[in-house]
Amino acid sequence: MASTADLRTEGLQEPVDVAKYLFDRLHQIGVRSVHGLPGDYNLVALDYLPDSGLTWVGSVNELNAAYAADGYARVKGISAMITTFGVGELSAINGIAGAYAEHVPIVHIVGCPSTISQRNGMLLHHTLGNGDFNVFANMNNQISCEVAKLNNPYEIANQIDHTLRECFLRSRPVYIMLPTDMVQKKVEGARLKTPINLSDPKNEPDREDYVVDVVLKYLHAAKNPIILVDACAIRHRVLPEVHDLIETTKLPVFVTPMGKGASDFNTAGFSYRTSQLNTIDFHSTHCVVRYSEYPGVTMKGVLRKVIERVDKSQLNLVKGPVVKNEIDENIDGSSTITQAWFWPRVGDYLREDDIVVTETGTANFGIWDTKFPKGVTALSQVLWGSIGWSVGACQGAALAAKDEKHDKRTILFVGDGSFQLTAQEVSTIIRHNLRVTIFCICNDGYTIERFIHGMEAEYNDIAQWQFKELVTVFGGSDKHTKKFVVRTKDQLNDLLTNEAFNSAQGLQFVELYMPKEDAPRALVMTAKASAETNARLE
Amino acid sequence: MASTADLRTEGLQEPVDVAKYLFDRLHQIGVRSVHGLPGDYNLVALDYLPDSGLTWVGSVNELNAAYAADGYARVKGISAMITTFGVGELSAINGIAGAYAEHVPIVHIVGCPSTISQRNGMLLHHTLGNGDFNVFANMNNQISCEVAKLNNPYEIANQIDHTLRECFLRSRPVYIMLPTDMVQKKVEGARLKTPINLSDPKNEPDREDYVVDVVLKYLHAAKNPIILVDACAIRHRVLPEVHDLIETTKLPVFVTPMGKGASDFNTAGFSYRTSQLNTIDFHSTHCVVRYSEYPGVTMKGVLRKVIERVDKSQLNLVKGPVVKNEIDENIDGSSTITQAWFWPRVGDYLREDDIVVTETGTANFGIWDTKFPKGVTALSQVLWGSIGWSVGACQGAALAAKDEKHDKRTILFVGDGSFQLTAQEVSTIIRHNLRVTIFCICNDGYTIERFIHGMEAEYNDIAQWQFKELVTVFGGSDKHTKKFVVRTKDQLNDLLTNEAFNSAQGLQFVELYMPKEDAPRALVMTAKASAETNARLE
Repeated sequence: MASTADLRTEGLQEPVDVAKYLFDRLHQIGVRSVHGLPGDYNLVALDYLPDSGLTWVGSVNELNAAYAADGYARVKGISAMITTFGVGELSAINGIAGAYAEHVPIVHIVGCPSTISQRNGMLLHHTLGNGDFNVFANMNNQISCEVAKLNNPYEIANQIDHTLRECFLRSRPVYIMLPTDMVQKKVEGARLKTPINLSDPKNEPDREDYVVDVVLKYLHAAKNPIILVDACAIRHRVLPEVHDLIETTKLPVFVTPMGKGASDFNTAGFSYRTSQLNTIDFHSTHCVVRYSEYPGVTMKGVLRKVIERVDKSQLNLVKGPVVKNEIDENIDGSSTITQAWFWPRVGDYLREDDIVVTETGTANFGIWDTKFPKGVTALSQVLWGSIGWSVGACQGAALAAKDEKHDKRTILFVGDGSFQLTAQEVSTIIRHNLRVTIFCICNDGYTIERFIHGMEAEYNDIAQWQFKELVTVFGGSDKHTKKFVVRTKDQLNDLLTNEAFNSAQGLQFVELYMPKEDAPRALVMTAKASAETNARLE
Repeated sequence: MASTADLRTEGLQEPVDVAKYLFDRLHQIGVRSVHGLPGDYNLVALDYLPDSGLTWVGSVNELNAAYAADGYARVKGISAMITTFGVGELSAINGIAGAYAEHVPIVHIVGCPSTISQRNGMLLHHTLGNGDFNVFANMNNQISCEVAKLNNPYEIANQIDHTLRECFLRSRPVYIMLPTDMVQKKVEGARLKTPINLSDPKNEPDREDYVVDVVLKYLHAAKNPIILVDACAIRHRVLPEVHDLIETTKLPVFVTPMGKGASDFNTAGFSYRTSQLNTIDFHSTHCVVRYSEYPGVTMKGVLRKVIERVDKSQLNLVKGPVVKNEIDENIDGSSTITQAWFWPRVGDYLREDDIVVTETGTANFGIWDTKFPKGVTALSQVLWGSIGWSVGACQGAALAAKDEKHDKRTILFVGDGSFQLTAQEVSTIIRHNLRVTIFCICNDGYTIERFIHGMEAEYNDIAQWQFKELVTVFGGSDKHTKKFVVRTKDQLNDLLTNEAFNSAQGLQFVELYMPKEDAPRALVMTAKASAETNARLE
């Protein structure tokens, strides 16, 4: 006599194990490498990765893994990571929160105790000892656009499809709890022949037309219209529309460092104020024209129609400033590498299609003074601003480029203070032999904090490391990795124009010495505004 | 004309700034060093540390800082750490959750945006961009015994006193939100002359007597009574009572590795089953005799009376086994350092009053076979079991010993896989020149996971590091630090009997090579049980 479970399985078309189904779906939506750490609640699931064409990264810790998944998703469009219940997932939570804040789609799968253990409230390791197995899911609920608990085999295939779709379309992390006893339950494999529908829902035509008319009315009337492009254009995949809009209108363009809104770090501490009365906002969930909001009308369709219907003869074209790399203007007669000179100089070093990752702090602000060649992908975490993020993100970005079979260079600019938080991610870069060049800006500590408060304070100092030697300690060979020390403008010019340096395939680590109390002008301005906001009494 | 704020301040006796008040209170309850990282929302507060006699540790990242605060509190009785809003506190949350699970009192202070920014829902960095400033406090509420938001100067002194008292008495983390605009508000300094009352509430005498009678009835009737001592005896400060009970009754004693209850890792996967019908449980909040629970009757008073009233003539004394370090019994004729031989051998190396920290995995189970000399403090994280914890905890423990002016040795046993997660905490050990010896067990990866599932699986492999060289990279000089490699029993014997090694003051790092597929017997047994629990279908 067949058990209930057997009967259920017999009714399935082409039954496959839950883990196989989940991982096949990840592969279908573009994931190739999966970040994370093994833990006793996820081990059996990990066995299924290779058969779905997925590579296990083998991260060094979960926070780094989350940062790396973030970087991977920013380049590849989506990413996945696997952690273990409690200890693993909580170590990653800051990275996931950052992805939520910055609209980065990460599928976070958490191997958790069996549904039986959960029902019985067993006193297991990696729990708080109070029998509550939902605490961590509840925490993640705050920073995920969907939480799925795969507790019932009848629902699992639907849950997986729905959750991955939400992750992609809303471009934010999702959280999937996978109990140990569900990993090998059977679900319907025939569903896998139909890919998950990832197309954006269309706007209601009448509403969309209405908004387009309003937009065009104010666009045509604008005295000095400019297009301001923010990160959601990338995250919500409207770059073709943005490019067409620019191409069609020839309007001047300003690109902000990030995010959906005007955050303080995104605008140098609110120094760039735009009146709501003069703006038209296009979002992934709604549009705003002046003070009028249009909920449910998403930007993609609106932009497409604006491009089609804009009357170029009515546009007031005011020429925008021409941006160039001001290298010569910032030569100061000394050999010292100053922030003012460095960042424009970087612009000349960069090549088409490079991936550039900048850390919160000096690098994130300095890069404002760098003019990029065509096709550069710039990654930064401006709103969330978690120091250490960039080292993980750099690994993930480089891995994504490799997975896409692009022979791109991934270049990281990170300060010495930030680097210390996540230094061991360099080990993962070496382990996967990724094409990465790291500029570690050695300037004795937390420079951005110094400019906000405590220029000479001991708490802004850091331990003195031999940074570049980490490459060797982490297993980097002389054949595949290179180490450099740069202290003068001439040394840097020599390095940046060296052909071997420019075309290297493995990891290159540059210790770059700059003065302790020097900072990019945008940082000085933002830090001052930040200190004032903190101290404000009313 | 004086403003309202001035009038309020004028009414205070000996007004002091909020930060000064908070830090003076921390000093009064035993904190000397404060872990954490600077961030723009906590910088001004950090300026106040030295004036209250507190030292800033300058941790390398927040998770390590939390682990270190955990280790510090386990040795010193309480600890404190300071992080910044969002990014900092979330990086620490796994460490705080572990302290909650294992009853470790940590005062976690989070520098957060000003009350004005919060009220206005400003789009600031380190937020989710949705104007909700309570998300992280809500998460922490799950893993803290008290959450205090210091938003109102009239309440702050009371809030601080109450929160620190809860932290100490309930022996669990508390969470304090300190907005930037409250740091320098005035509170009543005269209160500081009266220390916070940290005495345990007394039991109601009648209820206590009732429980004592029941306990004695079953204790006298027991056929083979033994005393089982778990970690709460330390955490809730009843060690004097426990020692007196053992001394008075002469009953055999078994000490578990940790925790208030019988967790799976604490009992080798529930292999030691004790019938509830045969047990008397003493807790910090209640007592349990057989199936009867006595809420509100705490162990301290009950134990004291049991000691006074026990009738020794009625006790059935059955001699317990004599424990010794079985070194010779485990010599196997090979030069290889096996787990079976190593852990008893460690017992001979240890000295009175050493602090021994063991990592989840091989070390935590191996140490079961190590007999300690008198006065050894053993730290492990058996219930929460977060790998990497021990490196941070070791730093905190050694710093606590230093702060107590004890010239104790702190000795860490950690596997290579776990070590990689938090390796940079070695930098903090060097920075503060702490007396630490690290045995890094190099056996090619996550051994405990191998024994649960995937003995040969690639996901249980780790990157190959030159572990001991990290000491130099992190700034360790030849004068203050030493590095060793040990591959044979003879080499280990030589090292462990070397007087210079035994009496060294700074950091010593030992790369200790052991076979990949070897594990302590308790780990093998627990891993098997764990795999079975994970796979159980009903």
